[in-house]
Amino acid sequence: MSSPGIAFSAAFAGTVPAPAARWAGFPRYNFVGGHNDSALIPLDALAEAAAAVLRREGAILSTYGLGHGPLGYAPLRAFIAAKSKAHRGIAATAEEVLITVGSMQGIDLVNALLLQRGDTVIVEEFTFAGALGKLRKLGANIVGAPLDAGGLRIDALAAILRDLKARGTAPKYIYTIPTIQNPTGSVMPLERRHALLALARQYEVPIFEDECYADLVWAGSAPPALYALDPAWVLHIGSFSKTLAPALRLGFVIGPWEVLGRMLALRTDGPGALGQMVVAEYFTRHFDEHARRLTAGLRAKLDVMVEALEREFGTAAELWRPEGGIFLWLRLPEGVDVRKLVQPAAAAGIAFNPGPEWAADPDAAAPWMRLCFALPSPADIREGISVLARVCAEQTGIPARSANVVTAG
Amino acid sequence: MSSPGIAFSAAFAGTVPAPAARWAGFPRYNFVGGHNDSALIPLDALAEAAAAVLRREGAILSTYGLGHGPLGYAPLRAFIAAKSKAHRGIAATAEEVLITVGSMQGIDLVNALLLQRGDTVIVEEFTFAGALGKLRKLGANIVGAPLDAGGLRIDALAAILRDLKARGTAPKYIYTIPTIQNPTGSVMPLERRHALLALARQYEVPIFEDECYADLVWAGSAPPALYALDPAWVLHIGSFSKTLAPALRLGFVIGPWEVLGRMLALRTDGPGALGQMVVAEYFTRHFDEHARRLTAGLRAKLDVMVEALEREFGTAAELWRPEGGIFLWLRLPEGVDVRKLVQPAAAAGIAFNPGPEWAADPDAAAPWMRLCFALPSPADIREGISVLARVCAEQTGIPARSANVVTAG
Repeated sequence: MSSPGIAFSAAFAGTVPAPAARWAGFPRYNFVGGHNDSALIPLDALAEAAAAVLRREGAILSTYGLGHGPLGYAPLRAFIAAKSKAHRGIAATAEEVLITVGSMQGIDLVNALLLQRGDTVIVEEFTFAGALGKLRKLGANIVGAPLDAGGLRIDALAAILRDLKARGTAPKYIYTIPTIQNPTGSVMPLERRHALLALARQYEVPIFEDECYADLVWAGSAPPALYALDPAWVLHIGSFSKTLAPALRLGFVIGPWEVLGRMLALRTDGPGALGQMVVAEYFTRHFDEHARRLTAGLRAKLDVMVEALEREFGTAAELWRPEGGIFLWLRLPEGVDVRKLVQPAAAAGIAFNPGPEWAADPDAAAPWMRLCFALPSPADIREGISVLARVCAEQTGIPARSANVVTAG
Repeated sequence: MSSPGIAFSAAFAGTVPAPAARWAGFPRYNFVGGHNDSALIPLDALAEAAAAVLRREGAILSTYGLGHGPLGYAPLRAFIAAKSKAHRGIAATAEEVLITVGSMQGIDLVNALLLQRGDTVIVEEFTFAGALGKLRKLGANIVGAPLDAGGLRIDALAAILRDLKARGTAPKYIYTIPTIQNPTGSVMPLERRHALLALARQYEVPIFEDECYADLVWAGSAPPALYALDPAWVLHIGSFSKTLAPALRLGFVIGPWEVLGRMLALRTDGPGALGQMVVAEYFTRHFDEHARRLTAGLRAKLDVMVEALEREFGTAAELWRPEGGIFLWLRLPEGVDVRKLVQPAAAAGIAFNPGPEWAADPDAAAPWMRLCFALPSPADIREGISVLARVCAEQTGIPARSANVVTAG
């Protein structure tokens, strides 16, 4: 495509990056990102909610902030407070909720509040690539803490904190995703939550709790949020991206004015009103039913993916079975570097998240990958995993036997 | 209200500002901000558009970027391209449109692309407070260029550019609002647009064109956008805040991939999909009719405000009659400092924009104020201006005679 071109590139700031890659559409087998199941978007209910709230309250769109102030649309804040109380044990009022442009803005605001270049931050050894990317861009010193099936290992974290203290380093926060950890899908048990908070108090390090997936727990409930157990030491963010739809770009921070008022002073802009109004209208009436239906649908897709992986990879893929959410974290045998699979997989129409992008120590995560199962249909999951196994075998000789067929080579 | 409080304020970054002021609701007579007329929000049409687009395409909400890529919802980009061609003379494809979180994100992205601390920027002597605030925060050296009824004065701008060049300073951009200037409401004539572009080429300074108000011209049309006349030297942004509703937080940048691709690499997140989908659905069918109705309604409110100001202030208020838009820029006699009126006016239920916040040289703008007429009803405009005249007379002795009553004092 021809493009007009510009004459002023000499004026670009010295720090400006190269242009982003041009959009080339989704791959055939899309196992990346945090996409949700299109079939589980409640089209009619959202259409009805949108029409109802616009007819009833649409006139307030004429004002900045809807006349509800900079924290966001008041009924959505009230819903978040009510849901957080009912499901996460959090006692917060609507005045303690700030609506954000997805949880990414929440992460940006926590970083703006706490971080300066060179500061040390503790993260889970495997964690959200978006948070890691921001920390790297901010020049933070990233320390990874080991995980097991219950999330952060308290003994190992205590050793890290002790060691940092001995070296005179005060970490700015501990970033954790305790309820459906990203990427492992684990849920931290209650006793461990208490132990983690005890460490936060002992070492005077705030905990940055990311609960983006907390509505999608197979068991239907999880131990209370860390923020519920000790709000004085926790920054809490959440999102509607996974619970309803990522394209809405709606997330939230829960905290006192000391925190939210400063975040408002730091932020340029908030999310659009229409998404806020429609989500409040829909979820105030239908949240529990929606979360149940969505969770059941996602769990069924996980089963399809696990079955396909077991059939195609056999024992060559070690799965970290998630307790909820939209992704599966798996490990190929030592020696495999999944980064080398990205291009051949893309050529075969497959996108996956390479483990190194989801790890504090990228090289140590070379054999890991994250597969999202929410967007593709069951048929595409089966087909895509079969193609992935073929690509993997071609590139690495693993799996040596796929779907009972010994691969050549 | 009691609030849990936090234990980790010691971890705040050294640069963190004090909390924002708590929201106290809108004032009785609200003449600030860029609010629109609530009565002119098309409730039924928006409700129908929302329901239609959600039923038809809502399933794509399940994906990041709707499967349309990071520039934004494709039908909205196509509409912006079509409208910009029809009304602003711009030849751009949908691939040359980036949807932003209001025009504020557009300003942030232009600044991120071009500015580093200490860089020099030329702005109109009176200009958008939001843009000025960002430039001050970024540590830019702000040079104001004089305005007249046709916008930027070319002779004066040429002198400034000559002078800067003689001192070895290359300004990073010239920020202009040529079509309904903010706050004067002027429209720059075609010959002057050409002359401005000739200066940009001569001095190799890009022009940053902000066309947030260009859909609201009393005359129904305006000369082509600067971007239409020479895309190689112009960065162009626009917004739906004034044309439809500010709470939507939808704006756009038009430019080639060289610019947009870099902005994408610089940006954390884009606007929510729901607003984009509904605006595209509504405006693709109803834009011209909507713009005509809105403009007529706003013009009638301006007439009410002008009449009230003339009645209450007489010759004490010198009005800069706008050629469109939602605000009126006026000047009280020399010696009045409107900053001293802010508190007494607030106590009487009135909010206005003090001229110094809208000026490159705040002190020189002490007698100026900006009054937005879009949000208040005609009755509130009349009443509010009458109360404003009383407050002003009490504080400054001006106007000495209001509505044919000589004020005491």
